[in-house]
Amino acid sequence: MGCLDGGRFILELENGINNGCSEIGKDASAIEDAVKVLLLGLGEDINREGIRKTPLRVAKALREGTRGYRQKVKDIVEGALFPEAGLDNRVGHAGGAGGLVIVRDIDLFSYCESCMLPFQVKCHVGYVPSGERVVGLSKLSRVADVFAKRLQDPQRLANEVCSALHNGIKPAGVAVILQCTHIHFPDIESIFLDSNHQGLVKILVSAGSGVFENKNADEWADFFNLLKFRGISMEKIHSRGSSDSCWCPSQSAKVSSEIGPVNPAMVTAVASIIKSLGEDPLRKELRGTPTRFVKWLMNFQNSNFDMKLNGFLNGRIDSLTANEKVAMENKKICSELNLSFWSQCEHHLLPFHGVVHIGYLLSDGFSPIGKSLLQSIVHFYGFKLQVQERLTRQIAETISPLIGGDVIVVVEASHTCMISRGIEKFGSSTATIAVLGRFSTELKTRASFLQGIPTPSYFSEQ
Amino acid sequence: MGCLDGGRFILELENGINNGCSEIGKDASAIEDAVKVLLLGLGEDINREGIRKTPLRVAKALREGTRGYRQKVKDIVEGALFPEAGLDNRVGHAGGAGGLVIVRDIDLFSYCESCMLPFQVKCHVGYVPSGERVVGLSKLSRVADVFAKRLQDPQRLANEVCSALHNGIKPAGVAVILQCTHIHFPDIESIFLDSNHQGLVKILVSAGSGVFENKNADEWADFFNLLKFRGISMEKIHSRGSSDSCWCPSQSAKVSSEIGPVNPAMVTAVASIIKSLGEDPLRKELRGTPTRFVKWLMNFQNSNFDMKLNGFLNGRIDSLTANEKVAMENKKICSELNLSFWSQCEHHLLPFHGVVHIGYLLSDGFSPIGKSLLQSIVHFYGFKLQVQERLTRQIAETISPLIGGDVIVVVEASHTCMISRGIEKFGSSTATIAVLGRFSTELKTRASFLQGIPTPSYFSEQ
Repeated sequence: MGCLDGGRFILELENGINNGCSEIGKDASAIEDAVKVLLLGLGEDINREGIRKTPLRVAKALREGTRGYRQKVKDIVEGALFPEAGLDNRVGHAGGAGGLVIVRDIDLFSYCESCMLPFQVKCHVGYVPSGERVVGLSKLSRVADVFAKRLQDPQRLANEVCSALHNGIKPAGVAVILQCTHIHFPDIESIFLDSNHQGLVKILVSAGSGVFENKNADEWADFFNLLKFRGISMEKIHSRGSSDSCWCPSQSAKVSSEIGPVNPAMVTAVASIIKSLGEDPLRKELRGTPTRFVKWLMNFQNSNFDMKLNGFLNGRIDSLTANEKVAMENKKICSELNLSFWSQCEHHLLPFHGVVHIGYLLSDGFSPIGKSLLQSIVHFYGFKLQVQERLTRQIAETISPLIGGDVIVVVEASHTCMISRGIEKFGSSTATIAVLGRFSTELKTRASFLQGIPTPSYFSEQ
Repeated sequence: MGCLDGGRFILELENGINNGCSEIGKDASAIEDAVKVLLLGLGEDINREGIRKTPLRVAKALREGTRGYRQKVKDIVEGALFPEAGLDNRVGHAGGAGGLVIVRDIDLFSYCESCMLPFQVKCHVGYVPSGERVVGLSKLSRVADVFAKRLQDPQRLANEVCSALHNGIKPAGVAVILQCTHIHFPDIESIFLDSNHQGLVKILVSAGSGVFENKNADEWADFFNLLKFRGISMEKIHSRGSSDSCWCPSQSAKVSSEIGPVNPAMVTAVASIIKSLGEDPLRKELRGTPTRFVKWLMNFQNSNFDMKLNGFLNGRIDSLTANEKVAMENKKICSELNLSFWSQCEHHLLPFHGVVHIGYLLSDGFSPIGKSLLQSIVHFYGFKLQVQERLTRQIAETISPLIGGDVIVVVEASHTCMISRGIEKFGSSTATIAVLGRFSTELKTRASFLQGIPTPSYFSEQ
């Protein structure tokens, strides 16, 4: 739980990490060049309209998303400490001398140092004032954000926020609890085998200083009670030891044989991005990051998917069981809801993921389509550099000739680029629709399908 | 529903509103001077440590919160329009030609033009692409934010977002739905009479252009179905006519006789703030705003509350019914949960509000305290320029001598200053605690009270 590491760290907190990054323009252009190498490695035409400005967008997004390297905690906390009386000749704790103060449910995101994907953080911070002074409440959130906006690991993030607040406020103690959620992107091979893929990895970490140094301290009990974490106690919080494996799913990802050897130019490009952000690519935890990032990115290479998909579609009738056939022929609208998908936004090289809902009317002479084939079609179009509008259209256009023309496709997605680039609209989600044949001309048919889409949705559960 | 007003508005969208505000420093200092007038009018010592920098903080917060006056929609949308194919020789709508695209649940806040308090907005935007091009999804959120960051009325906000997107994207149509929530701050007199005060006013508004111009269009049905607004249809959405009264509670607020005549220097100060933000204080909807703001602010004047409170406390035994006495004497910890409070953050002149939970152990020779007296104590300390830590301590210190010394007070609050100043942590809430006597020394007694605080709390229901 201890997280006060003495002089060097404090110096960094006060001065910001100095990596000689004064020439912002130069760093941004280095990132742009590196992104071009990645796009070429994916087999993309970097002059294609949709991705022509992607290097610029990625550079801007990364600089913004890691602005914490260039922020100073001292500037934030200084001037926000206010004198506040404690109790006057009474037994107890209140105000600026001992009354616990907590801020709950601060939404943050950070970048995983192991794979460079953003992860979400629900942050809870508390401190016990001493010396008859309190800090402006919003500073707890601002300081947490400084350390979130870096390449991070959950436990280190908790420790750094805790240390920085302790040094900035000089209170009796600081407590930090982080609930972190990391996207678990499947790789393109295993997704066809593992239909129960768990899309999210979660971890709960804590850090404490001063009176919170001892995890059995009464102050922790108060903190948990005020958080209303009923039934969750310190024992359930991950205590990270040096022998623990990293939480990041990329650490345990199997090496896909189909992807082939990792392109060394791409690995060098990612290392140069890490350096441009103000990090040391040789730091122990970052050494394997460029390779892991490239391996993951190669899931989205611009390969000969269409040919493969045709092979799939030709054999499709066999994949349907007799039961499936009977069930589907009795329904007017055949529908398959909540097919999961994973994709990569071509504008920002950031993931988007969610569910696809497909409905169709079966024309005479056509056979219904089994769920596993529909899921395969969705994955085929997902594992590319994509935009959601195109994904929706491509799925509809692929299904249309298989069933005689009347098809509706709805894609509901959560876009990482909506939370991790200064927009930070955590609760937002996106829906797109494609309607072909009778679904485009008959409102009633369309509405009947749309009203069958479950609510609360995929997104409100996350 | 129509919201395209032609030339003048489009010109403003493209150029930003030009109010001659190029000298940002000058405007900020004008706001600071005006805030000093307001603080003096409230009877505050503007050199007091806690509020010495409040003028600077308010000026920064207001400039940040109304930055939309200085942003240009054209800069946001340009470069974010991407070519995207539609359907190829098929009947229907998809991709860049006709497939509806929506972004749901975008959290925004805005400033009410009628009272200058922030209000929250849950924004849903949709558009139907045409001309084989789509807009980057995050731009829908960014453009909505430009208009939210101004002095606004919900219907005007919806219209302006709709027009700006229509002109920027040139789609087949744009639809906007806003769910707006305005704090309904009670005034200091009526709060003691009305224990069922409703703390929030809500309104649902819409705007549509192009294919959404007609509110009975099929496109609206699709939009509602994708929003999963089951059971909510266009009929339930507020259609504002010119004869409607404003939604802002300040418009119907009774004039408090105790507050006395409105200080003209304060009214002039607020008008100068409005001008500095880039608005015309003579615009019809803004003419009464300075007076309404000052009337509301005067609820928090630094008056002789302590004397009044003493009068209250001396007569307190009479306020307890015989039943209340019996019930409370049988319990070990007397507790009163979820007492509402309303207060004003002295650091930012912005509201914070929530609930207070009070527990105490009754010493021999003391009588229990009725709920109405506890609620009065809470209101007395709430209606001031405050900080939450002090409010918590003051309530505990006031109750302590009345029951023999053993008291616990927990304040749970939602701070407007945590959402409306660039921090934008919409879901966050704050808890503070004061413990006196046995509540400070006995963990078990304290925990027993804390675990009785209801969850889900006040905040998760908002």
